[in-house]
Amino acid sequence: MSLKFYLAGPEVFLPNAREMLDAKAALTREFGFEPICPGDITIEPAPSRHQFGLNISAVDEGMMNRADGIIANLTPFRGIAADVGTAFELGFICAQGKKVAAYTNVTASHFERTRAFYNGKVVEGADGRKRGPDGVSLEDFDMIDNLMLHGGIERRGGFIATHDAAADELYTDLTAFRRCLEFFAGQ
Amino acid sequence: MSLKFYLAGPEVFLPNAREMLDAKAALTREFGFEPICPGDITIEPAPSRHQFGLNISAVDEGMMNRADGIIANLTPFRGIAADVGTAFELGFICAQGKKVAAYTNVTASHFERTRAFYNGKVVEGADGRKRGPDGVSLEDFDMIDNLMLHGGIERRGGFIATHDAAADELYTDLTAFRRCLEFFAGQ
Repeated sequence: MSLKFYLAGPEVFLPNAREMLDAKAALTREFGFEPICPGDITIEPAPSRHQFGLNISAVDEGMMNRADGIIANLTPFRGIAADVGTAFELGFICAQGKKVAAYTNVTASHFERTRAFYNGKVVEGADGRKRGPDGVSLEDFDMIDNLMLHGGIERRGGFIATHDAAADELYTDLTAFRRCLEFFAGQ
Repeated sequence: MSLKFYLAGPEVFLPNAREMLDAKAALTREFGFEPICPGDITIEPAPSRHQFGLNISAVDEGMMNRADGIIANLTPFRGIAADVGTAFELGFICAQGKKVAAYTNVTASHFERTRAFYNGKVVEGADGRKRGPDGVSLEDFDMIDNLMLHGGIERRGGFIATHDAAADELYTDLTAFRRCLEFFAGQ
């Protein structure tokens, strides 16, 4: 039985979502694994938009429950941090004790991105914590995102790939995704 | 034995983090529950910032493993979405089948906030999906955040409180947090 990986990430929102999910699925199969992609199952029409959203949540959780692990695309999405849906899914799979890997197509660290959010106006206080002009502190742990995400992966012996994708290939460049597959193939 | 709730949220980053965590812990005890707060345990010094971050991740996961449920503050943080660390923790607790509640001090829905991110320039395509000028689609499911978060709570019979806090009390107003406690107290 080949290992099944849940392919989490904001690709489902892209204009070419189907194409990207198919490309990731094909690459996953090339490495001998079975891809499980959110968006692969057609969700039945529901009486309300809200119920439709709940039905997608149910389908995606079911997919995670069937998976042996996750490859999460943590490339910052609509802001400086990973897509929160993907973060939820990473936590879900971590709690289940399954295999975890993640990648980001932005090499700037979580700290560097948050500092840029504050236009560089970050100072270190007497307590040793770095803070923005609003007094809110920044994590500075050489991590790709919030420590629960990065730590949850690294502490489990998971894999994290970073790659500096071109701006117009931020969500389509699969270099780092492939490295996650290589990691699992080498285990 | 009183139920133990993990109090997740971006409060740990606030200038008055200790004060806020103490206030939330005190309120939790008033309702007869035991609060478990990230930041409550002093993390031992580590040989590197990175290791220090990993150690915090380990402590926080240990706290979640001891908890009977979570109350997650999903108020948008440094952008239009919830703190990704909190999203990870919510997914973690959902996977464990524990009690879940969340609140946000912003009443604008996930869709409304994402539309504002695009300065209102959102159009509905032939496929029925609403998209920004970048072609990236928006969820429009009457939810407080990404459907995995909102759906993960609602589908489990959890509770979601929304409250329109004053701008200068966005992370300190505990009205909606209290409503989560009232929900659990009424169960």
